[in-house]
Amino acid sequence: MKENQCKIVDCTIRDGGLVNNWDFSVEFVQKLYAGLNEAGVDYMEIGYKNSPKLLKGADEAGPWRFLNDDFLKKVIPNKGNTKLSALVDIGRVDENDILPRSESLLDLIRVACYVKDVDKALKLVQTFHDRGYETTINIMALSNVMEHELLEAFDMIKNSVVDVVYIVDSYGSLDYKDMELLVNKFKQHLPNKRLGVHTHNNLQLAFSNTLVAADLGVELLDASVYGMGRAAGNCPTELLVTHLKNTNYQLRPVLEVLEQLLVPLREKEEWGYLIPYMITGSLDEHPRSAMALRAAEDKDKSVDFYDKLTTPEVGFDKNK
Amino acid sequence: MKENQCKIVDCTIRDGGLVNNWDFSVEFVQKLYAGLNEAGVDYMEIGYKNSPKLLKGADEAGPWRFLNDDFLKKVIPNKGNTKLSALVDIGRVDENDILPRSESLLDLIRVACYVKDVDKALKLVQTFHDRGYETTINIMALSNVMEHELLEAFDMIKNSVVDVVYIVDSYGSLDYKDMELLVNKFKQHLPNKRLGVHTHNNLQLAFSNTLVAADLGVELLDASVYGMGRAAGNCPTELLVTHLKNTNYQLRPVLEVLEQLLVPLREKEEWGYLIPYMITGSLDEHPRSAMALRAAEDKDKSVDFYDKLTTPEVGFDKNK
Repeated sequence: MKENQCKIVDCTIRDGGLVNNWDFSVEFVQKLYAGLNEAGVDYMEIGYKNSPKLLKGADEAGPWRFLNDDFLKKVIPNKGNTKLSALVDIGRVDENDILPRSESLLDLIRVACYVKDVDKALKLVQTFHDRGYETTINIMALSNVMEHELLEAFDMIKNSVVDVVYIVDSYGSLDYKDMELLVNKFKQHLPNKRLGVHTHNNLQLAFSNTLVAADLGVELLDASVYGMGRAAGNCPTELLVTHLKNTNYQLRPVLEVLEQLLVPLREKEEWGYLIPYMITGSLDEHPRSAMALRAAEDKDKSVDFYDKLTTPEVGFDKNK
Repeated sequence: MKENQCKIVDCTIRDGGLVNNWDFSVEFVQKLYAGLNEAGVDYMEIGYKNSPKLLKGADEAGPWRFLNDDFLKKVIPNKGNTKLSALVDIGRVDENDILPRSESLLDLIRVACYVKDVDKALKLVQTFHDRGYETTINIMALSNVMEHELLEAFDMIKNSVVDVVYIVDSYGSLDYKDMELLVNKFKQHLPNKRLGVHTHNNLQLAFSNTLVAADLGVELLDASVYGMGRAAGNCPTELLVTHLKNTNYQLRPVLEVLEQLLVPLREKEEWGYLIPYMITGSLDEHPRSAMALRAAEDKDKSVDFYDKLTTPEVGFDKNK
């Protein structure tokens, strides 16, 4: 049996931070890192490397929203085998904040972008690559991208230095056939690039779609413990750890993290399969309207919500 | 585009009754039936047709545990297009309780059995068939069945009168590759039988596995609204209704049922993806130990639970 080529990228702090405004204690993050490291998880995405100067509401967010390298060294004084990753958004990162990799605990910097910004993303990627980091480009909202846009993006990407190209199911609307189609398309047009996948659980397909992608050769698999992530959340780390074949992952340390950190947190914060998120997923649109509903008084009025989204003259401004 | 051949069998009352001891009010069941009928769902499994004489603890269960034909006529005075189904277990059904179909509201009687009891199940099937009912045989715990046992069962089944043969993932341990393998095996050995599938959500794969089975030609798809069913629950009816292609299902009536009935019920009763159920699913065993844990004081101590299940000398008696 050949060794499984997959690598898990745990996004609990980064994507989960979208749930609780990155209000994780240092102790929480330290325990999570220790557990993931013991479990053999390959990467931990410990936050965003955006600049607070370039974002509104920065004062209210936890420190994982704007990672600082000195702070990070205090949080993780003894780094293990689990590498550290940070995400940046186009237009929200100050390149002057990015130290050379030799002076940072970060190993991987990932750039999230919509397909129209692939050129800008690749400029950032080049900068991070030149400073020594592993890099990825994460193309969001692929279910809403037209074929010719994607082909133009592939043309730019295949000649770039980026290490890994991500398929991102931002709206949690893809099923296994969609995922097969996308992975095969990416493989065909980007034969020189490794691939990654990031899923959302609106239709309870995050884990399944990740398995399908992995079986087709996608290497970097995003996940989060107990699926903690924006809206319907992500592929659960514990399921990948226990189910991927021919790997050396250990489930027990992830169970400890679940029991001590994530299951109690789920009592206070909300994410996962909820009907409004199912509705936006099945309509193939951004969950922001569903998130607004869940924050409102009438959060369980999903029939009204569905009517608004599906009756054009009454509809929300979807801002798509 | 060809019409989708799939039929949804909603098991909310029958399998959901395993969660709340069938404590559904008549009004609840009536509203559910009306909603499923409006949504175009093909079958509603309204309970068990076992005999209270043959089961301990019968007094405490709701009426859906032991369906009575006269009672059923009061519950559903105006039957719509949605057919009614009941499940029976081997050794728990009194054949004298089964009226001719012309005198009953029931259309379909399904027989659940382990592979070793297929012969007994087929005798019951013959009786129900002779009384005019559609019939299925639901072979449970297929993930624990050896090849030669299954082949012997196929030999008996293919010469029987049963209409539909079910693949049942009792432990919620199958993934899409397992499901593909099983469906293809059933198709190969039972070319004259229609197939059905019943999944559990221990690994968040219930919906995905049901989609895979449907795409391979499996016709009867078990589901329940909000996934309500024993332990980790089932494939959610709302996801099939919204996602199956080339069908005439309507999501909105299911959303009404969700909002009025199932989402509020989930506040009081527990089912769905929870870590102890994930553990038994990943170990491919019956969830009874996890259900016992969830009923106990230390219900969130999943690390201890995992240690007990995976350390042979300390382990529970799994009764497998």
